[in-house]
Amino acid sequence: MKVVVICGGVGAARLLRGFVGMVPAGDLTAIANVGDDMVLHGLSISPDLDTIVYTLADAVSAERGWGLEGETWQAMEMIAAYGAVSGQPLDWFSLGDRDLGTHLFRTGALAAGATLDAVTAQIVERWSLPLTLLPVSNDPIRTMVTVAEGPDAGDEISFQEYFVGRQHSVAVSAVRFAGADAAAAGPGVLDAIDEADVIVIAPSNPAVSIDPVLAVTGIRERLTARRTNVVAVSPIIGGKALKGPADRLLVELGRESSATAVAEWYADVVGTLVIDTVDAAQVDAIEALGVRSIVTETIMSSPEITRALAETILDAGQP
Amino acid sequence: MKVVVICGGVGAARLLRGFVGMVPAGDLTAIANVGDDMVLHGLSISPDLDTIVYTLADAVSAERGWGLEGETWQAMEMIAAYGAVSGQPLDWFSLGDRDLGTHLFRTGALAAGATLDAVTAQIVERWSLPLTLLPVSNDPIRTMVTVAEGPDAGDEISFQEYFVGRQHSVAVSAVRFAGADAAAAGPGVLDAIDEADVIVIAPSNPAVSIDPVLAVTGIRERLTARRTNVVAVSPIIGGKALKGPADRLLVELGRESSATAVAEWYADVVGTLVIDTVDAAQVDAIEALGVRSIVTETIMSSPEITRALAETILDAGQP
Repeated sequence: MKVVVICGGVGAARLLRGFVGMVPAGDLTAIANVGDDMVLHGLSISPDLDTIVYTLADAVSAERGWGLEGETWQAMEMIAAYGAVSGQPLDWFSLGDRDLGTHLFRTGALAAGATLDAVTAQIVERWSLPLTLLPVSNDPIRTMVTVAEGPDAGDEISFQEYFVGRQHSVAVSAVRFAGADAAAAGPGVLDAIDEADVIVIAPSNPAVSIDPVLAVTGIRERLTARRTNVVAVSPIIGGKALKGPADRLLVELGRESSATAVAEWYADVVGTLVIDTVDAAQVDAIEALGVRSIVTETIMSSPEITRALAETILDAGQP
Repeated sequence: MKVVVICGGVGAARLLRGFVGMVPAGDLTAIANVGDDMVLHGLSISPDLDTIVYTLADAVSAERGWGLEGETWQAMEMIAAYGAVSGQPLDWFSLGDRDLGTHLFRTGALAAGATLDAVTAQIVERWSLPLTLLPVSNDPIRTMVTVAEGPDAGDEISFQEYFVGRQHSVAVSAVRFAGADAAAAGPGVLDAIDEADVIVIAPSNPAVSIDPVLAVTGIRERLTARRTNVVAVSPIIGGKALKGPADRLLVELGRESSATAVAEWYADVVGTLVIDTVDAAQVDAIEALGVRSIVTETIMSSPEITRALAETILDAGQP
């Protein structure tokens, strides 16, 4: 059974752990968001790709959920010691020394003419990961959010400036995926979707992690056509996001923070939404939207729960 | 007494140690080569500026002569583990973790709109160095060498590809300073030369470290006009360079490897050449070129010898 998982970062990486081992390497493809990518201090950084790699390699920091376990911070301490430039600190985005090796490799390989998908494949190979990991596009896509409050209300800032720089504590009035209109799906991306028996939308942030993937030409159309086999996992549990600002973003963008709102968000592309047991009362509301709903434990607090969730998803994707 | 020192990397940094403390901070200006600079894996790297800073900060690796003492190599090990790209390794240029902090700061600050001289001043301030350190230009200058032998004979390669990538083991037929014609002297550079009582040319490589400084518009003319006060230290001692390929380069470029050849190289801009005691027999030949010659110990193997050399230079610059 061929499985495609559409991924943001942390939540997607954790769900992928459930599919690895269950689905043979040649049949498992993750298609990852690149809207969080940025060039920082000259380096090409792809946070979602790296979170997926480090998590599947069992090398991710358990405490942070991103970056590498046992990391050192020599470079960051040096950057911090040099101080701010035009009043702006340059150490707002943490770069561990080993993690820097990944960014330097990616940047150097891109400069040498490699494409992002080829660089990613080489990184996956070095970590011996049993799946295909595809950036949704080799073209630049930049998730931009419009600030809704404070001195720069109305201004657009990059996703990382919002997420890391301001620790997603500012209200947002709009989200835009710069470059997505012109971005072509990366090599293998559309074929993987076409050939998949089940297409999974990971429990990532719908507004800023999954939507930039769906915004790439051809993806939304293909998912709509395959809707019966598309299964999403709600990232909203009991009205809250486990991690990150998905709950607040949904409200700021005019929805409510609930599994039902997630079903509404994805209704055109998703046949089945897997929701947590605490949200069982929302099944009728979700099915009224034309989305099948399956209730199970979705907080991946153990390998057993993660594996059971993955099995439930695969069953749901072939109704 | 105001002193300007025209600098390459290691040899210049060691000589500057002799002037620091002897010349008040406000009166000591180093003008450094940027022809060795490069963008590597996205990072703006300025090897000569960094060697000067790290050396004067007593932070330089004594063993290597470049980079930082007590450095860690986490990022490099990661880059190496990812392997080659298109058959080319990406780990040919060593980047220590703390050193990376300097490159990331420089790159980030330049991206934020700072000029190279302002970035350099901030680096100098962080290390509390008692001098003004000026890149000769804020504009890009790239020292290019033409390979004289082997499969790519006739091709131009960058200085770092020659110096580090091939460990300066390939013969060279020509040297060019790409961008130098269009490069303007950096802020303060020409004024510092005009106001200097003594102008020193450090015992750096004439062909690839000092010449790219002299190639910037206005520098050679000003030194020629101030020739009486310009003192160079021969980097060739007993026919050999202490470090690096200066001796072979002189021969490959049609000269001989001797203090006399250095005098000939610099004859238009230098009033006095300081040569080592082992080369005392060359005084007449040098003076026949119209260059005054002073013989002293020039191998800076102790702080006392370095200080004595600095004193000799200052005396020689005010004949």
